[in-house]
Amino acid sequence: MILHLATFRWKDDVTAADVAELTDALRDMAAGIPELRSYVCGESLRLRPGGADFGVAAIVADEDGLNAYLDSAAHAAVYERLLGRMIAERAAVQLPVESSAWL
Amino acid sequence: MILHLATFRWKDDVTAADVAELTDALRDMAAGIPELRSYVCGESLRLRPGGADFGVAAIVADEDGLNAYLDSAAHAAVYERLLGRMIAERAAVQLPVESSAWL
Repeated sequence: MILHLATFRWKDDVTAADVAELTDALRDMAAGIPELRSYVCGESLRLRPGGADFGVAAIVADEDGLNAYLDSAAHAAVYERLLGRMIAERAAVQLPVESSAWL
Repeated sequence: MILHLATFRWKDDVTAADVAELTDALRDMAAGIPELRSYVCGESLRLRPGGADFGVAAIVADEDGLNAYLDSAAHAAVYERLLGRMIAERAAVQLPVESSAWL
């Protein structure tokens, strides 16, 4: 399976309300994408210095599942409506994980 | 529980051998830190554009566990010997996850 990790640093004008709305929208999106075996997202707890404001961790079965998720109309809709204009910086990686992986 | 996510972009002079050595060192480190419930790290599979080269995902019980991991002598040793000189950019976040979370 594949763990997709993404960290985001917001633009200065992003508000707490924007982040709350985005978090709900991403969770609703994830609930409707069957390829997502597991999905967590949210504002960082900021327990350590890290330079990022928000994170996403998603588990999919394989590359096709990853593309189905990231290329979905639902993901595009959240990006266009909210996420796209909020991002100052984004970093993403994919790591292989065991089939027992769950978030 | 807490999911700690970190993404790294390397400096231009970092080699594949550096990354392989770092990956082994981080995994050995993680095996010796009881507070780490779950730990995965590695070079990104680069399946999607993302701007980062390497990722870490670690699950700990709580903030004390997170600090025990990140402030451990073992983590400091890997940072000083390898990781510190490789980093061009790092982004890290912490997200709350269910107790069933496992990587």
